[in-house]
Amino acid sequence: MTVYRAPLRDYKFLLEEVFDVGEIAKLPGYEEATAETFAAVLAEGAKLCEEVLFPLNLPGDAEGCRFENGVVRTPKGFKEAYDLFRQGGWTALAADPHYGGQGLPATLNFFVSEMVASANLSFGMYPGLTAGAVEAIHQHGDEVQKKTWLPKLIDGTWSGTMCLTEPQCGTDLGQVKTRAVPTDGDGVYRITGTKIFISAGEHDLTDNIVHLVLARLPDAPSGTRGISLFIVPKFLATDDGARGPRNGVRCGGIEHKMGIKASATCVINFDDAQGYLVGEKNGGMRAMFTMMNAARLGVGLQGLALGETAYQSARTYALERLQGRSPTGVKFPDKPADPLIVHPDIRRMLLTMRAYTEGGRALAAWVMQAEDKAHRLTDADERAANDELVGLLTPIVKAMLTDNAFLVTNLGMQIFGGHGYIHDNGMEQLVRDCRITQIYEGANGIQALDLVGRKMGQHTGRLLRRFFHPVDQYLRAKMSDPALGEFALPAYRAFGRLQQTTALLAQKGLVNPDEAAAAAAEYLRAFGLVALGYVWTRIAEVALAKRGMANGEAAFYDAKLATARFYMAKLLPETGALFASIGSGAKPVMELAAEAF
Amino acid sequence: MTVYRAPLRDYKFLLEEVFDVGEIAKLPGYEEATAETFAAVLAEGAKLCEEVLFPLNLPGDAEGCRFENGVVRTPKGFKEAYDLFRQGGWTALAADPHYGGQGLPATLNFFVSEMVASANLSFGMYPGLTAGAVEAIHQHGDEVQKKTWLPKLIDGTWSGTMCLTEPQCGTDLGQVKTRAVPTDGDGVYRITGTKIFISAGEHDLTDNIVHLVLARLPDAPSGTRGISLFIVPKFLATDDGARGPRNGVRCGGIEHKMGIKASATCVINFDDAQGYLVGEKNGGMRAMFTMMNAARLGVGLQGLALGETAYQSARTYALERLQGRSPTGVKFPDKPADPLIVHPDIRRMLLTMRAYTEGGRALAAWVMQAEDKAHRLTDADERAANDELVGLLTPIVKAMLTDNAFLVTNLGMQIFGGHGYIHDNGMEQLVRDCRITQIYEGANGIQALDLVGRKMGQHTGRLLRRFFHPVDQYLRAKMSDPALGEFALPAYRAFGRLQQTTALLAQKGLVNPDEAAAAAAEYLRAFGLVALGYVWTRIAEVALAKRGMANGEAAFYDAKLATARFYMAKLLPETGALFASIGSGAKPVMELAAEAF
Repeated sequence: MTVYRAPLRDYKFLLEEVFDVGEIAKLPGYEEATAETFAAVLAEGAKLCEEVLFPLNLPGDAEGCRFENGVVRTPKGFKEAYDLFRQGGWTALAADPHYGGQGLPATLNFFVSEMVASANLSFGMYPGLTAGAVEAIHQHGDEVQKKTWLPKLIDGTWSGTMCLTEPQCGTDLGQVKTRAVPTDGDGVYRITGTKIFISAGEHDLTDNIVHLVLARLPDAPSGTRGISLFIVPKFLATDDGARGPRNGVRCGGIEHKMGIKASATCVINFDDAQGYLVGEKNGGMRAMFTMMNAARLGVGLQGLALGETAYQSARTYALERLQGRSPTGVKFPDKPADPLIVHPDIRRMLLTMRAYTEGGRALAAWVMQAEDKAHRLTDADERAANDELVGLLTPIVKAMLTDNAFLVTNLGMQIFGGHGYIHDNGMEQLVRDCRITQIYEGANGIQALDLVGRKMGQHTGRLLRRFFHPVDQYLRAKMSDPALGEFALPAYRAFGRLQQTTALLAQKGLVNPDEAAAAAAEYLRAFGLVALGYVWTRIAEVALAKRGMANGEAAFYDAKLATARFYMAKLLPETGALFASIGSGAKPVMELAAEAF
Repeated sequence: MTVYRAPLRDYKFLLEEVFDVGEIAKLPGYEEATAETFAAVLAEGAKLCEEVLFPLNLPGDAEGCRFENGVVRTPKGFKEAYDLFRQGGWTALAADPHYGGQGLPATLNFFVSEMVASANLSFGMYPGLTAGAVEAIHQHGDEVQKKTWLPKLIDGTWSGTMCLTEPQCGTDLGQVKTRAVPTDGDGVYRITGTKIFISAGEHDLTDNIVHLVLARLPDAPSGTRGISLFIVPKFLATDDGARGPRNGVRCGGIEHKMGIKASATCVINFDDAQGYLVGEKNGGMRAMFTMMNAARLGVGLQGLALGETAYQSARTYALERLQGRSPTGVKFPDKPADPLIVHPDIRRMLLTMRAYTEGGRALAAWVMQAEDKAHRLTDADERAANDELVGLLTPIVKAMLTDNAFLVTNLGMQIFGGHGYIHDNGMEQLVRDCRITQIYEGANGIQALDLVGRKMGQHTGRLLRRFFHPVDQYLRAKMSDPALGEFALPAYRAFGRLQQTTALLAQKGLVNPDEAAAAAAEYLRAFGLVALGYVWTRIAEVALAKRGMANGEAAFYDAKLATARFYMAKLLPETGALFASIGSGAKPVMELAAEAF
């Protein structure tokens, strides 16, 4: 059986002890976002996730979505849960108060999203896609568009999508064929084409669905420079913002997928549908990218979220399931066997799960805080600095956290043994649901290219320095600390090799772009593992300082220290293999002729 | 879309060029097993697998098995395919000619099993389980039992199972509760209890199902020393070997699983059922282990098999799917985009798949040849030597090949991008089907304990020497070879560290068994990667020798060399991380209190 309790203590630890949540409340417009607000909102969200969304997760997977006569039915209970979610104001949390939002920080919103995804990833897809649409319209739409669409999207009576992929193109959006033909109406276009893999493209949770669609104008240049973004609603809006007549948007079917079966993945056919240009003509890719960056951080968090549920479930099972005896002799002579937790290999798996999940959450929390600062600091340079750190770490959070999560959910399943393979126990669903996070919003190989091919060289390495400088400073200062040195020193060594490898790769990549591309995936992983080494050192520092004075919480801090130690000893060494492999260059990857594969 | 063509050229390469299949034909009783026989049987098997079994794989997954009124229905087409399989003599391939078998070598049988699993793993489970039952009765049954049960199991009109697991125990069979009460009839017992996770426990492919059941006699000692093995058929056999009256064996239901959905995984209830003791009273575990060793090698091969299908499918997709442009500039200006294969990261994934799959097959082929020698050589010492090599490498073949296969099938899915997540494209099924291979027949953590806790120390390290000596000799001789040195040298270096780590672990494990157990999984993996380094060097040696004189096959050998180079440069370095992690000892795994997890 899977179990889930929101990790509120860990949120508090990160927000109040490791990273200073007080800094967020100092940002203009976030004055209300105190530690107390965070705690109250998270506790309220935890209740909804644990009591309403989590119980629907396994039955939702078994039932899946159904497609009948152009209509998609979500599984039993989803509509009622969505209404509770909406009425609770959860769709409005981080949105602009001008349009009905609550204006709370991204950091808070992301922890709420983690809880939702831990409890029921499929459910979370529906409001998640809406949030993306809200962001796109909010950043790139004009005032009329904002007034027309945002209030109902933010209060959740309508929902949104992102329509990018077509049968012939996913990653390579330059191949988009959907056409947009201008009409006499001002800013009104006729959209025709087929989009696939549209999450929340059609469903029965909301009155209307507002699609954000990439399409090509008749005179558009070829490739990605000729793509524009359009709002194309399922039902048109009347002048007073109510639901009007049906638009030429039809669901052609839903996909049968490996996982997230309660999330409808739709084929959407646009047939001369009315659409409204968002932002500049041919500026669609840029608009889509601002949405996509937030979405990518969100997907990293989805992975993390499933890892949390897997860890909690596997830990519970390992404490209860009696199987075999400890290698060092019987530990529970009165029981027919010892619990799994006595076995070193089970502990190794659990600690791996924990180190990746808690470390990944800390890394994400750091990035989220920078995201809030990037939006709200008064100083433009400081805003830019934070924005650059977020930009650099976004592909790492997306790819490494989801790769780790797939490892973690699989380890959880492995601890369940044969019982993990059985649907009713819930563990295999976590693996299947998690698997898509490595693929959507840019497959993890694309994230690696984003890091190596775009972020690394941007502004002659300035993004890199946003990470390298503070990390260098911190680890260098701590590595000879008598208590903290055991964490800071290995982290600093791995960091040193990361710097060397970065320089090497930048150099070789200039001469031959294949050199950078062939190393990209391994480089991203090494970078991510070093980043986890940094955050685990920071966690250890706090834990060392607090454990003495912890009232009855020494065990909490001791667990942090033990996990940090495990990370340095058992997981960080992977970087050595990655650096060695990168050092061998692109030739072993490129020499085989295509036809010899 | 998945594609599958039997890798007959690779079989020929391994059998005739790398390992000398002629040696098998020199073994007493295998005189017919010449290279020509191998080639003819494999070509015939390939046809059946490609044309009959593979087309049933995806629909079989979609339909699954159904349980109605105690009866299990396999998916459409399975019964007809099974009849073809049986009539073709495939169930009899490696069985004893005294009871209707064809007496062909294990090596050949295992390659046939690989093809079957590549084409349709679920289908392969049914004859696979029968083969296990045949082996158990053949090795441990008395002559009456053999005459009664073997002919119909071998010709496939009846099928078999292994009934080990119960709700309270899987790995820890000492907890088995199923009871066997002696009756007045000579050797006849009454069996009562519930077994779970019984593959092929009930189905509509054969007239009768012969269960091999672990149960406990009334006076049995507790734990594994008190377990006996029984034949418990669904229908009793009449004196003339026909199907007689129904026995007290009922299917209580089937499991809904992550994968192998066309393989029925049953709850089997024994209610005062007639059973016949096989072998010694309380000797059940030993008997079960002889079956299990072969089964474990078979599971390793199942993983490999799914990796082969994944590789072929991903390669085909990478050559056809047009997406993006090469980092070094447009390669196909006349096409809307370049094929995926131009992208270094796609090549990295494909080469990883290939290196693990072809290398794993070579390792398995080496072990299978030793298995045949262990059974048939005339010299007892040589038989023992080969048997010990097989014993040592069995947990490695089982665990590493299935772990690699899970990586490989996931990489294949990743290359398909979003399309990989869709059921109709078949790639996600390979991942789901593959996942069980890491769990059943002893979870991979148990394999690691078998290696470190049993095999390593056996006969004061004699099993280890069966591997270490020839590998040391070979790599040492080749590492300064001007052409082969680039392969042999890195392999030898990793081998050197394996020897050091082995010594370290043996020493520390004697003082504290947790030290060995905490390192077991990483040690097994490092051992396996070194073993792959050894076989890739042997493959490279052959390829170097043959490429000059290869008539139109230079590309085949060049691909072997490129893959060997890739393995040494990109995959073998993982051993460095594993040795470093092992070197940090058990403390980071053991220090956290159980209740702090």
